[in-house]
Amino acid sequence: MTVRGVQLGQRSETVRRANLSTIVRALHIRGPLSRSELVARTGLTRSAIRELIGELVASGLASEGPSAPHGTPGRPSHVVRLEPGRAVVLALEISVDSLAGAVIGLGGTVFGTVRVDRSCGDDSVETVVFQLTELARDMLTRHGGDTLVGVGVAVVGIVRRSDGLVSVAPNLGWHDAALGSRLAASLRLPVPVAVANEADLGALAEHRRGAAIDVENLIFISGEVGVGGGIIAGGLPLTGVAGFGGEIGHLPVNPDGRACRCGAIGCWETEVGETALLVGAGHDPGGGRAAVDAVLREAADSSASARSSLARLAHWLGIGLAGLVNVFNPRLIVLGGRFGRLHPFVCEGVEAELDRRALAGPRAIVSIVPTALGDDAALIGAAELAIEPLLSDPASWLSSTNLRPAEART
Amino acid sequence: MTVRGVQLGQRSETVRRANLSTIVRALHIRGPLSRSELVARTGLTRSAIRELIGELVASGLASEGPSAPHGTPGRPSHVVRLEPGRAVVLALEISVDSLAGAVIGLGGTVFGTVRVDRSCGDDSVETVVFQLTELARDMLTRHGGDTLVGVGVAVVGIVRRSDGLVSVAPNLGWHDAALGSRLAASLRLPVPVAVANEADLGALAEHRRGAAIDVENLIFISGEVGVGGGIIAGGLPLTGVAGFGGEIGHLPVNPDGRACRCGAIGCWETEVGETALLVGAGHDPGGGRAAVDAVLREAADSSASARSSLARLAHWLGIGLAGLVNVFNPRLIVLGGRFGRLHPFVCEGVEAELDRRALAGPRAIVSIVPTALGDDAALIGAAELAIEPLLSDPASWLSSTNLRPAEART
Repeated sequence: MTVRGVQLGQRSETVRRANLSTIVRALHIRGPLSRSELVARTGLTRSAIRELIGELVASGLASEGPSAPHGTPGRPSHVVRLEPGRAVVLALEISVDSLAGAVIGLGGTVFGTVRVDRSCGDDSVETVVFQLTELARDMLTRHGGDTLVGVGVAVVGIVRRSDGLVSVAPNLGWHDAALGSRLAASLRLPVPVAVANEADLGALAEHRRGAAIDVENLIFISGEVGVGGGIIAGGLPLTGVAGFGGEIGHLPVNPDGRACRCGAIGCWETEVGETALLVGAGHDPGGGRAAVDAVLREAADSSASARSSLARLAHWLGIGLAGLVNVFNPRLIVLGGRFGRLHPFVCEGVEAELDRRALAGPRAIVSIVPTALGDDAALIGAAELAIEPLLSDPASWLSSTNLRPAEART
Repeated sequence: MTVRGVQLGQRSETVRRANLSTIVRALHIRGPLSRSELVARTGLTRSAIRELIGELVASGLASEGPSAPHGTPGRPSHVVRLEPGRAVVLALEISVDSLAGAVIGLGGTVFGTVRVDRSCGDDSVETVVFQLTELARDMLTRHGGDTLVGVGVAVVGIVRRSDGLVSVAPNLGWHDAALGSRLAASLRLPVPVAVANEADLGALAEHRRGAAIDVENLIFISGEVGVGGGIIAGGLPLTGVAGFGGEIGHLPVNPDGRACRCGAIGCWETEVGETALLVGAGHDPGGGRAAVDAVLREAADSSASARSSLARLAHWLGIGLAGLVNVFNPRLIVLGGRFGRLHPFVCEGVEAELDRRALAGPRAIVSIVPTALGDDAALIGAAELAIEPLLSDPASWLSSTNLRPAEART
């Protein structure tokens, strides 16, 4: 994602705000940078940068100092760095078999994470909201919530971004669940609660901090039971009109195939989802992560049924990916969630299928890689979602009560 | 597409250039606007707009005057309008059975178009470049090429935008054809030659001047023999890394189906392309536009085989569109090219298939409409491609020799 500031018109206050955003975003994504690096990365003039850094330092949101620790040989260069504790977000994740939370500071510093099992729990919205609220209170108590600026939530469902309505979450049995508003009411925190699909957030996280840094065109594929997708095209997340975009698990790849949980026939996830893998390997469906890992162990031990089920999955994974390569012409496809664990077992089959089925031009450009962030990709993405309003307009936050005066923390 | 100016940093010359671009783009897309409307649409200050309009008027690129013709009752409001003849582009199109050209001015005024049959012609790159060069010279002679600022070319093939290389154009038998550089060498015009896929340009044209004005998320589907797609997501064309994006005709919808011209099996275009329609209706394949129109006439006359072939096509069209709706969450799908003519025959079947197969959230949002620009969508899009450098930085053009002094034309 580009860190160059975009800016309307020429009203000087608008320009100042946008330039402040440009600098804070660059430091948030890239880490500490010298003034010269900021000039190079942002396109702003040296004098503008000097003035804006002064403002950030005065507010306590950033500091300036040597880049290397004391005692390192050579003359250390001066860098500007954000103060992670001055603005933190609460990231929450609702996945099929766990709930997770993290407190993450500006610049990406992780102050604490927790993941709790929910595989035998009650899936109702009430219960999940209650459990998340408990988890959130605990995290904020332990890791400091007095500089909280936002809450971001990743959920395995199709989400309307404007209000966090979960249109469908088949793994949770949710339909039109008002997750955003219910969670906000339960948390009772003085900050916004933003909700998005877990794969969309996984894509954002890999793009900012994982396997796809500086990659402007990528597809992140995740999935435990189902198959989710997060797409970044031309540096921007593809959300569609209402945030429903990216549902690649419901591409029709085999219209005479099996019934999908969504009501259609032969969606991609009926061929590459967990059920297909488990049943193909002679397991019962519904075994979750443990059963998938058992299939992978069996395949490593040369079980013929496990290997053939994985080969079949690689075949169908390649077919769907060929379609996505043809439509999106991406640089990178990142396999996340369950697909990240499958990667060593399926990569050869997937590459062969792409050679057979994708158009030569885009095929030559794309690479398939496993996640660099493991199971936490969506959680890290939720933190990025929650910090976005601050990155977009730090000036508002500097003047609001959400950021306590610097002296209150020193 | 938004007409608000985007702008780096705060260097005043950069800001001036971007604001000039904002104004010219707004006038180009929206037509004549009053100063108040420009303030509202661009977000610029009234004083900035006054100054920039002064500059545009002085250069002859715009003029200011009453909105209504003399003699209209009431006091006419003052509007700013671009002078179409002060900067024109040459748009060219290479389609399966015709070549077309147009001279189009700033603001979209069409000075002239021509379309010539090439259904029994030689498809070699040399011949097509030669024919286009003849056509271009004739158009420029007749419609005035002394204010030419660019050439845009639409082609039925997969195009690398950077240099106009046609990676594959199955209908022309082209592989890695250096169309951009060969056409530039043949035309010998002192302006850039930009090449893009015809469906990508159709999408751009429908977005700016057709069925999808103000629609930020749309998919344009076209096709004569094959199936092409142009996608605009979040207001921006989806091109992918190298401009290969949008090849929706090669989504795998039936992997046990028929061999596709691309080498894969069961691509969408094997089910909804011209061959499937013709053969299903009892015609020979390869009949082109005339044969397709014959099938439509037969269907209107209640031919059972024509109707069943169209019903089958509607079924597969709906399947593929369901996948695209799930992935892109678009507001609008525009059926162009052959699909525009099929629309009245297939719309009911397509809508029914979408009801069955698309996810409820995005399904509720999308509409399927026929092209508003007919056969000229790609040609109009090619003109938009060619004018883009001027819209992005009118200041460079004002100071270059490409724009003759205003007095030279008055």
